[in-house]
Amino acid sequence: MNKPPIAFYFDLLSPFGYIASTQIDALAARYGRSVDWRPVLVGVTVMKVMGMKPLGEYPLKGPYLIRDMERMAKIWGVPLRRHGLKGHNSLKAMRAYVWLKQRDAELAKAFAKAIYRRLWVEGLDITSIEASVIEAQTLGVDGAQLAEAVASDAVKRALQADVENAIAAGVFGAPFFIADDEPFFGNDHLWMLEQWLRDGTWKGPAA
Amino acid sequence: MNKPPIAFYFDLLSPFGYIASTQIDALAARYGRSVDWRPVLVGVTVMKVMGMKPLGEYPLKGPYLIRDMERMAKIWGVPLRRHGLKGHNSLKAMRAYVWLKQRDAELAKAFAKAIYRRLWVEGLDITSIEASVIEAQTLGVDGAQLAEAVASDAVKRALQADVENAIAAGVFGAPFFIADDEPFFGNDHLWMLEQWLRDGTWKGPAA
Repeated sequence: MNKPPIAFYFDLLSPFGYIASTQIDALAARYGRSVDWRPVLVGVTVMKVMGMKPLGEYPLKGPYLIRDMERMAKIWGVPLRRHGLKGHNSLKAMRAYVWLKQRDAELAKAFAKAIYRRLWVEGLDITSIEASVIEAQTLGVDGAQLAEAVASDAVKRALQADVENAIAAGVFGAPFFIADDEPFFGNDHLWMLEQWLRDGTWKGPAA
Repeated sequence: MNKPPIAFYFDLLSPFGYIASTQIDALAARYGRSVDWRPVLVGVTVMKVMGMKPLGEYPLKGPYLIRDMERMAKIWGVPLRRHGLKGHNSLKAMRAYVWLKQRDAELAKAFAKAIYRRLWVEGLDITSIEASVIEAQTLGVDGAQLAEAVASDAVKRALQADVENAIAAGVFGAPFFIADDEPFFGNDHLWMLEQWLRDGTWKGPAA
């Protein structure tokens, strides 16, 4: 019997989500597991549900997070460039992901990777629908059809439902991983996810 | 030439600090390093400096943190019991630590471990001066002298100065570790601290 996929909750805005996106499929595959990439909006979970500001805006924690993302990128050999964008958001790109996933989960994953690369390697904006159209067209998607879908109420509601499902599963930020009901927040927990996939229990050293 | 000690910032209130306190000296020793245990008050860094609530009070994140501390304790084979205390704080115990450290850093470390054990293994309160007196007396400290010192302005100011120094060093929570100016927040970063101690650089896989 195949083991259930690992849920990987991501927001295309997040540099830590980008770093996770380069690691999670290979990590899961080492333990014979697949990964279901599920959208979440950190603007909703962090700000509306938890009542926090974006974490990077907190004194002391903000500079620490920048340093942390840069050394994690080095540890895993992931190209990462700090962009100077302000006021950008991932809403349309996340809707595009949702629509693509309804059609082809692997294609949607390739699209998410392209958007991450666009923002965190090329330093280009991802806010406008044009950004999603460009990246999707490169993958052979009909750009006009994508733009129409992203503007539709059905796709907006589908993303909202995904975010609500994430919150119901206890997801409060991204990247967030759930394997066999075990939740893991952040790349700094990937070693614990790996230990779980290997052992399936939290046995430690002999007490 | 000896390498400088690793700074370990802890609050005697924190279960994650307790778990860290059982690991950090042995981890450092594997790389020939000693550890300087430095007090910080998360009530000041989290609430006053960052303007956050205690992290455990946030929706979704609160239950996650409880689960995370319990599995970390299992991973490292650390005895841990959830106490049902409310309204407790670590202020007097932290002042007692500061006063003891001025006299004998190793004795102070043993005191901190005793207070952690009292709260997180025995489930007893640590708020009152009596709690610090009992644990210090077991270590051969004059209880009356300790109680007098903890009530003194000099010791209060010394702890305030330690907390201000921690904030100036970028410490925003506990446990927090600094090695060679590299900051690490949380036990989930201990693997990164260990990698740093081993390599002294963030070289990753070949790009």
